[in-house]
Amino acid sequence: MKYKLIIIGFGTVGQGFTQILIEKKNWLKTEYDLEFEIVGVSTKSKGSIANKNGLDPRKLIRLINKKNSLNEFDGGVAGLTTLEMINYLEANILIEATPTDLTTGEPAASFCKAALRKGLHAVTANKGTATLHYSELKKIANLKNLTFGIEGTVMSGTPVLNTVNTNLAGCAINSFRGILNGTTNYILTEMESGKNYAAVLEQAQQLGYAESDPTGDVKGWDAAAKVAILCKVLFDSEFKLKDVKSQGITQITCDDVIQAKKNGYRFKLIGEANFRKGKISAGVQLEKLPLSDPLAQISGTTNAITFETDLLGPVTIIGTGAGGKETGFALLADILVIHRANV
Amino acid sequence: MKYKLIIIGFGTVGQGFTQILIEKKNWLKTEYDLEFEIVGVSTKSKGSIANKNGLDPRKLIRLINKKNSLNEFDGGVAGLTTLEMINYLEANILIEATPTDLTTGEPAASFCKAALRKGLHAVTANKGTATLHYSELKKIANLKNLTFGIEGTVMSGTPVLNTVNTNLAGCAINSFRGILNGTTNYILTEMESGKNYAAVLEQAQQLGYAESDPTGDVKGWDAAAKVAILCKVLFDSEFKLKDVKSQGITQITCDDVIQAKKNGYRFKLIGEANFRKGKISAGVQLEKLPLSDPLAQISGTTNAITFETDLLGPVTIIGTGAGGKETGFALLADILVIHRANV
Repeated sequence: MKYKLIIIGFGTVGQGFTQILIEKKNWLKTEYDLEFEIVGVSTKSKGSIANKNGLDPRKLIRLINKKNSLNEFDGGVAGLTTLEMINYLEANILIEATPTDLTTGEPAASFCKAALRKGLHAVTANKGTATLHYSELKKIANLKNLTFGIEGTVMSGTPVLNTVNTNLAGCAINSFRGILNGTTNYILTEMESGKNYAAVLEQAQQLGYAESDPTGDVKGWDAAAKVAILCKVLFDSEFKLKDVKSQGITQITCDDVIQAKKNGYRFKLIGEANFRKGKISAGVQLEKLPLSDPLAQISGTTNAITFETDLLGPVTIIGTGAGGKETGFALLADILVIHRANV
Repeated sequence: MKYKLIIIGFGTVGQGFTQILIEKKNWLKTEYDLEFEIVGVSTKSKGSIANKNGLDPRKLIRLINKKNSLNEFDGGVAGLTTLEMINYLEANILIEATPTDLTTGEPAASFCKAALRKGLHAVTANKGTATLHYSELKKIANLKNLTFGIEGTVMSGTPVLNTVNTNLAGCAINSFRGILNGTTNYILTEMESGKNYAAVLEQAQQLGYAESDPTGDVKGWDAAAKVAILCKVLFDSEFKLKDVKSQGITQITCDDVIQAKKNGYRFKLIGEANFRKGKISAGVQLEKLPLSDPLAQISGTTNAITFETDLLGPVTIIGTGAGGKETGFALLADILVIHRANV
């Protein structure tokens, strides 16, 4: 089966996803009878290109890295806005990979809405959209028998949301607890070797683990958004981000970390939620865990989450939580969900 | 949608599964529009009962625990053999929950084959059948567009096989490594407190963690069967159990365990496999792991597995590996796979 794709946002994630399509082209055809044609790519500041007959993915990546603009693509209609492109093309799936805005969830939410209204499945890695517009977009998708996929918003491609939605679907899950932000976990891990917070943050920025404005990570907002998304998927689609009590790691000192280590403890930024008697309590906080706690063993940029289930007890998933290819894989994982439902 | 079920084997797993259907009846209907009717239950030595109009699951459990025979069930045809029952009833899914035989995989394999040939999906928790007859049964199922589900054969209900088959399907997995047997992990954990092997084994038997004949667990055969099943699902459906080099834990002494602990190590029975250049190397062996190895932190009857993936790096799943309800859940998880493909 062949799917026509529109990709919105062509940064690390959009390119990571496209690179996977290039590298896995033959394998996806052989294993799953799955073919893709990218018919449009739209960006905020680097132009856009649409072609009903398809765009060569290698050329797209070469062009964006060389010229920094898609408008110069040879063949197709250049310069359409995202909404114009969704209307102009007859695509099957919108791949939404624009940067997260935790205040409005826009413009990603409007793009997903337009796509779903036109009959496209929408797949996003955007935490803002998933946090602030989940119930509305999910409702439209359900009404139209389409998929609104958000696997990439929690722990990037590590299969968390699709796992609770499918393979753990027969269980009731009433709480979860995890390390949901790789940047802060990297900082806390590195501080154990005696470096102070500011030095490690700078190191994380140089390595690309932290953004130039690291506020969203270090204040706990990114982890809070993931907690909110999990609460929506697991407990109540109307749950609000503002109801996650969140704390960051900015107050921690090198002495705190080393003293804790001496006493057999580690500081971890823990995101968690409980659902009891119809009420959700959710938060992100810095916790001093004994080394015997499995979450104390999660180091560097790795993420981990434990779900408490009624039939299996605790089920833990550990894996990467960021990266262009890793999040690109999440978009592919959601497409495979769509594909399995259609064959 | 309503499914008519035949349950073969009515021990811990068959009853655990039935208990879940009783407890989750309303929830499964509301959440997934899923209804079940048990139309037949067959056992090796405790009789059988079939009724085209359905059997009350509560009565089935009460009867087997009180009278130890299903032949006395009030209403229906008693005493049919399993194969007669499969022919007599018009069911949708065979739930195969007989004890594992790692030498022949029978009679479970013949039951699954008869069911698939008649057009029923077959779902099994039987490691013998999955290890020795996987490719044949999978082939019949594929030809008839049916499901042969084996989620319960590795780490009971903890979602491992369905996760690699669905949510990790876009990744290439070339190796895995894990703690796949809870009995031996419990013994190794308990020996750290200074008890010797024989004493801990007896304790494990009293707690129901080890069977009266513990050979299959302590010699590593159970873990080897799980390694073989994973190799078949991931790498090559023709892979043979005899090609897993396996070692057990019977040679270990209390001194070994305590000495290792003093030096910052733990003994673990590790099942692993690598797939390189079309060749599989697979084994089960006792390894001395540094405490920094995540698998060294898995204690008691808990199981864990790490898959090396091309796009995500390592992905680890930790959870329970045994139990009637836990394995019963795996059977339900496979039914949900069937249900999702049919709605």
